[in-house]
Amino acid sequence: MTDPSAASPRVLAFDVFGTVVDWRSSVIAEGEQLGKGKGLTVDWAALADAWRAAYRPSLDRVQRGDLPWTKLDDLHRTSLESILRQFKIAGLSEEEKNHFNRVWHRLKPWPDSVAGLRRLKARFVITTLSNGNISLLTNMAKHAGLPWDCILSAENVRHYKPDAEVYLLVPDLFDLKPGEVMMVAAHERDLQAAHELGLRTAFVHRPLEHGPGKAAPLPPVGKYDFVARDFLDLAERLGV
Amino acid sequence: MTDPSAASPRVLAFDVFGTVVDWRSSVIAEGEQLGKGKGLTVDWAALADAWRAAYRPSLDRVQRGDLPWTKLDDLHRTSLESILRQFKIAGLSEEEKNHFNRVWHRLKPWPDSVAGLRRLKARFVITTLSNGNISLLTNMAKHAGLPWDCILSAENVRHYKPDAEVYLLVPDLFDLKPGEVMMVAAHERDLQAAHELGLRTAFVHRPLEHGPGKAAPLPPVGKYDFVARDFLDLAERLGV
Repeated sequence: MTDPSAASPRVLAFDVFGTVVDWRSSVIAEGEQLGKGKGLTVDWAALADAWRAAYRPSLDRVQRGDLPWTKLDDLHRTSLESILRQFKIAGLSEEEKNHFNRVWHRLKPWPDSVAGLRRLKARFVITTLSNGNISLLTNMAKHAGLPWDCILSAENVRHYKPDAEVYLLVPDLFDLKPGEVMMVAAHERDLQAAHELGLRTAFVHRPLEHGPGKAAPLPPVGKYDFVARDFLDLAERLGV
Repeated sequence: MTDPSAASPRVLAFDVFGTVVDWRSSVIAEGEQLGKGKGLTVDWAALADAWRAAYRPSLDRVQRGDLPWTKLDDLHRTSLESILRQFKIAGLSEEEKNHFNRVWHRLKPWPDSVAGLRRLKARFVITTLSNGNISLLTNMAKHAGLPWDCILSAENVRHYKPDAEVYLLVPDLFDLKPGEVMMVAAHERDLQAAHELGLRTAFVHRPLEHGPGKAAPLPPVGKYDFVARDFLDLAERLGV
């Protein structure tokens, strides 16, 4: 745990999928819309979960070097092909598939995200620090009204989280010590990697990320610098 | 000249120093404030011009490979040392010099910049495409209220404009053809480099960039896709 008497962080770096936006409901909603238009009967919740489950293994292939650097849009597009086969969805044009693939650019924020980010932005530099590619994060921000000061991505360093290069990008760019940057995420693996490199850490609880009744347990008190219910609660705890 | 019947650009990429912000007045104003506090008598307009005149030669040293990649903050800091000697300014602490060096993070926008960018942002993705480093551009946006969708910089590719890598970054990240990106700048060299790579171009006239009576001539009609008086005029011409 970081010394609580240490200087306040200057930059807050946010994980995005699950932490800022609700990928699951958004993919389900667009799937249902697509299904209605095309006369498809599909379990869109299962499809959203399967598509997301393909995410980490696809990043791992890049991290292991089995694939050269590939942006997330293209990894999503490859996994979409096998998801469509798995769910027996045929008859989509190339354009329809490409449009559906970009649902990840149109994910909806959690109810507190925009208001919470606005409050935090008044005191801190707020940036994305996501495995999503730069255009995905830019389009998402525009679509959802996320008021980022800066868009930073795994794509900046061509390494995926939890590789150290991604976390260290922020203190490097801003000429800060790692302890002057705080990683904000709903996922312990992300925060642990950041913590090991000396960044401060804030866990934000997103109990509905994987659907009702699937909440991960809250981490024990003291494991991270902050454990917050949502971004408004985090702003409160940071005295903003 | 790009075919006017071609598809509208999707992303507008902006040069920043001189195009979006008035570096000269801003450096003069902070210099005068510093001078008052320290009892210095200095021709701050001449100092601003001399500091800016050191800019291009310092980038050239990086482009030629005489220097390894060096972010603009550090190039500014090196040139500041010789500027201080040239203007016989002594007695500044390291902290005072570092603070003054970051005047480039606090440059003031031209009167139309914020309102014009807001209008353009309603239709296009608007991004910086500047030789300024990412933290400089981020802090400037926060200070001046510039509503960028995205911060892109020479630092992303570790090449300075007019190297091709900088311009091609935008279509590469956004999966666009070069002709779907428009470079907006007050400088012909910048626009010509962008044009040669297939980007669309908009010249914005900033007659006061170098002080009163120093306006560069307007380029001839047809040399660029648009020639605009300011960002509001550009929005008008783009039908926003």
